[in-house]
Amino acid sequence: MSEIFKRTHMCGELRMENAGETVVLNGWVSRQRRLGGLIFVDLRDKTGIVQITFDESVPKEIFDRAQALRGEYVIGIKGTVRERASRNPELPTGDVEVFASDMILYAEAATPPIYIRDDDNADDNLRLKYRYLDLRKLKMQRNLTFRHRIAKVTRDYFDEQGFTEVETPMLVRSTPEGARDYLVPSRVNPGQFYALPQSPQLFKQLLMVGGTDRYIQIAKCFRDEDLRADRQPEFTQIDMEMSFVDMDDVIGMQEGYLKRLFRDVMDIEIETPFPRLTWQEAMERYGSDKPDTRFGFELKKLNDVKAVAETEFMVFRNALDSGGDVRGICIEGGSKQFSRKDIDKLTEAVKPYGARGLVWIRREENGYKSSVNKFFSEEQLDEIAAVFGAAAGDLILIASDRPKVVFDSLGFLRRHIAGMMGLLDDRQFNLLWVVDFPMFEKDEETGRVKAMHHPFTHPKAEDIPMLDTDPLRVRADAYDIVLNGVEMGGGSIRIHDRKLQAKMFEILGISEEESIQKFGFLLEAFKYGAPPHGGLAYGLDRMVMLLAGEHSIRDVMAFPKNQNAQCLVSDAPNTVDEEQLEELSIRLR
Amino acid sequence: MSEIFKRTHMCGELRMENAGETVVLNGWVSRQRRLGGLIFVDLRDKTGIVQITFDESVPKEIFDRAQALRGEYVIGIKGTVRERASRNPELPTGDVEVFASDMILYAEAATPPIYIRDDDNADDNLRLKYRYLDLRKLKMQRNLTFRHRIAKVTRDYFDEQGFTEVETPMLVRSTPEGARDYLVPSRVNPGQFYALPQSPQLFKQLLMVGGTDRYIQIAKCFRDEDLRADRQPEFTQIDMEMSFVDMDDVIGMQEGYLKRLFRDVMDIEIETPFPRLTWQEAMERYGSDKPDTRFGFELKKLNDVKAVAETEFMVFRNALDSGGDVRGICIEGGSKQFSRKDIDKLTEAVKPYGARGLVWIRREENGYKSSVNKFFSEEQLDEIAAVFGAAAGDLILIASDRPKVVFDSLGFLRRHIAGMMGLLDDRQFNLLWVVDFPMFEKDEETGRVKAMHHPFTHPKAEDIPMLDTDPLRVRADAYDIVLNGVEMGGGSIRIHDRKLQAKMFEILGISEEESIQKFGFLLEAFKYGAPPHGGLAYGLDRMVMLLAGEHSIRDVMAFPKNQNAQCLVSDAPNTVDEEQLEELSIRLR
Repeated sequence: MSEIFKRTHMCGELRMENAGETVVLNGWVSRQRRLGGLIFVDLRDKTGIVQITFDESVPKEIFDRAQALRGEYVIGIKGTVRERASRNPELPTGDVEVFASDMILYAEAATPPIYIRDDDNADDNLRLKYRYLDLRKLKMQRNLTFRHRIAKVTRDYFDEQGFTEVETPMLVRSTPEGARDYLVPSRVNPGQFYALPQSPQLFKQLLMVGGTDRYIQIAKCFRDEDLRADRQPEFTQIDMEMSFVDMDDVIGMQEGYLKRLFRDVMDIEIETPFPRLTWQEAMERYGSDKPDTRFGFELKKLNDVKAVAETEFMVFRNALDSGGDVRGICIEGGSKQFSRKDIDKLTEAVKPYGARGLVWIRREENGYKSSVNKFFSEEQLDEIAAVFGAAAGDLILIASDRPKVVFDSLGFLRRHIAGMMGLLDDRQFNLLWVVDFPMFEKDEETGRVKAMHHPFTHPKAEDIPMLDTDPLRVRADAYDIVLNGVEMGGGSIRIHDRKLQAKMFEILGISEEESIQKFGFLLEAFKYGAPPHGGLAYGLDRMVMLLAGEHSIRDVMAFPKNQNAQCLVSDAPNTVDEEQLEELSIRLR
Repeated sequence: MSEIFKRTHMCGELRMENAGETVVLNGWVSRQRRLGGLIFVDLRDKTGIVQITFDESVPKEIFDRAQALRGEYVIGIKGTVRERASRNPELPTGDVEVFASDMILYAEAATPPIYIRDDDNADDNLRLKYRYLDLRKLKMQRNLTFRHRIAKVTRDYFDEQGFTEVETPMLVRSTPEGARDYLVPSRVNPGQFYALPQSPQLFKQLLMVGGTDRYIQIAKCFRDEDLRADRQPEFTQIDMEMSFVDMDDVIGMQEGYLKRLFRDVMDIEIETPFPRLTWQEAMERYGSDKPDTRFGFELKKLNDVKAVAETEFMVFRNALDSGGDVRGICIEGGSKQFSRKDIDKLTEAVKPYGARGLVWIRREENGYKSSVNKFFSEEQLDEIAAVFGAAAGDLILIASDRPKVVFDSLGFLRRHIAGMMGLLDDRQFNLLWVVDFPMFEKDEETGRVKAMHHPFTHPKAEDIPMLDTDPLRVRADAYDIVLNGVEMGGGSIRIHDRKLQAKMFEILGISEEESIQKFGFLLEAFKYGAPPHGGLAYGLDRMVMLLAGEHSIRDVMAFPKNQNAQCLVSDAPNTVDEEQLEELSIRLR
């Protein structure tokens, strides 16, 4: 092995207080240039960039080699730190330079196909193909380090709280529930398959039955879904479970964790406890079970406002008469900002949510302008405006349809408009809990009742009697943690009673035979004494993305797949030898 | 959700100093018995067992419920700690009992199919099927916690040393190198497959090219091999890599880590630096590249001893004339312990290593008894015995054959005999490095040269000139860490030069086309400036097993597979729907 210069500092660390020190650095040449008999090299490692200077006092042989340096050459430098004549305020190390006395060349480099600069706007697929170059960007290394830091603080905290990190298996049983599984053919058991886990849910419940008491794992999970919307085939969960707890215990533990996390990695003190909204309240006020509370624009229900309740305006009338809702939001000061054309665009934007139109009302200094002037008198508009406390200059937008459509449309709209108005402050972190989710929802396609979370969620004790009579009104001991309108995690208290679990399967239309085939081992385990237990899981990728202020989870993963689930660095997936398939007792179709 | 007693203590924590305290406990009924109007319940959680006592002062309703308790019922207890009348010295909590005032029953339990006791010797498959019951054993929970502790200390240490934990992908490219891959059919890319990683080797090298500088990961790895010898389809590595380092840097970092690990989890101070043996020395002295140095019995070469060199004894003669070796070990005081019959058994035991026989020589008070008295005079036996410094009562065992057979046989034999003689002290931890491995070895089947570690290992600088002339004599910058005769980990300095890497592929008979197809992305990456780098990986399962004093890695994993690679808890692998296969563009053969 060739000689290695033993590093004394990282490039990004050097400051004025290092002046006079002899240092050894290793890194990549970010830039080399010659100026007035001197050679300047910007040397980069993961911590930053520092300027290296060669003058004619170094041996000619070294000077010549310094002159031959090109971008991305890998070198080691010995030298002395000194104050820089012309300071560079854009670099943290910009007050100093390293006056080289020796240099070693570890490796040459061809011209890279992408620029190693944070603001390089290379095509995504090019960035993924040359990920090892993309990762040299300071921002990408910062993101990897930040992710590491979050994982570390997470493990520290839960370790202190008596949690045990347990590795659950990656080769598990396929259950045709939920998302699509990735399958792994078994060679030893021909014709049979493992699945890669969508979550460690069943195993963590078994750990509770096994007495592990407090479990945590930062676990790889897999879903073979279409990769729209910044999803990845493999993703990472912070997964945990606790025995002998109720919802308050689980929530309290998480608040302690998140407080610590924000303090340690963000240097931000957040207040606990976080606000709790029931699912019902979240929908009514924000039109969403992931409310963003950094701004107002809360939804108001207009069904019972006399002007609306008695209206002959057909759009409202039809909605009300078919059991739907009329709800609106008030954009303070929005009247000036949104022209008629803008409102048309907003109307377009809510169409994917099912809304066929929006009613708008502008509160003016004197009276109103609105899309429904023909149908409502000024007094009636007063009545509506009063619900919102609307003042002159405000814009009211109203949707009327089935409740779900109204909620989804307005829920989207308020955040969309807040974004347009610049109200989404990246440095503000509003955490809240949404609790008391409905236990079930109606599958719109099949009309069947399905579990809103998963079939192991415990119904609220007081709602259990309704399981038989009115299951859609049963609420669950389920909770989501929401940050700025994004679901960061969620969990529930689980059923630990075999009979109640069997009843849930029955309500979900899962036959006894099917439930035994799929989850028999869990029901069997419950026979032998299961403790009450509950837990929660965070999406780590999304959490890191949110806290790092990034907009794609790909920027917080080392080697993500592209939109076609391919790893462009290593060119996976690929074709394999026929012999391999033969050994696995499978063939291609 | 039903009421939960909020725990104040764990069962195993209570001691005399808690006497008088009101406590709340949750756990499983380990035993219930009635004695003289009192009910005694042994309550168990993961920390241990404590005695709960009910007398008639509790409400009758509670007393009755306590009376109905059976094994593995899950309960909560409120009560007062008091000194126990008849202390139980076998329990850490045996000085106290908890005098119950209230009780809650969380769940009943059927009679479990295995005993929840550390010394339950249930059949392995039964233990795996009811793993959630097996895990209730205190020993199993202790093992899980111990494993957690090792992982935690590992992460703490390397975090302090500036390492970043980076998650490398689980869905990777299949390379028909090394062991058999687990394959994952791609739905989005029909006819193509991912592999599950056998190790993060290539990705960690790419991270170094990407400037990550110091990488660690506790990573799941997969090998579809036959499961003899306590292997598992999925296993866990502590995997790391460093840039700008030589072998001494990597080794020094590990010694710091292992010192810290032994201190923190074993409460043992180990001395650093560890001894380093070259591979050659390890073979010559111990007949193994994983020497156990807790005892003597070192190998001695007899080829050049006059009595042997000139012998007409055909067994030795043939070995020497065909380029083989005559080597032996001396078992101090072994003569009495091993009868003629015992030696016959030892001769049987080395047959799997290729040895066709063993020569034995007993040093007596006066002269020798041996299996070769006919061929060697007493003076000649003196000459042989002198090599070992044999004294009266010692037993010399000699093998002669090809060097590999001699090393393997004697290497096995010395440890086997040490085991029989009770010399393998579980509380002694002899750590050492084996370095300077041969770069290549000859594949006995094909006669081709193959890599001893892997094709990315850097040859020793001074041996590079021999790559062309005498590759089998080239040594590698590779190192294994050995604990008590078991390889706990290993690594190497990697090649970071594209041309040298290409040359290695050439020597290994990998065509340019093949190397580009398999490892092209690594060669491509090396084009753009790769730093010198090296690393190491530990087998975590084996490490935990060794330090926990267990004899199977299954006892330090939560949900291991059985010998047929099945998960008996969840019954994986299993058959899947035809539709699932169709979506994946595969069918069964």
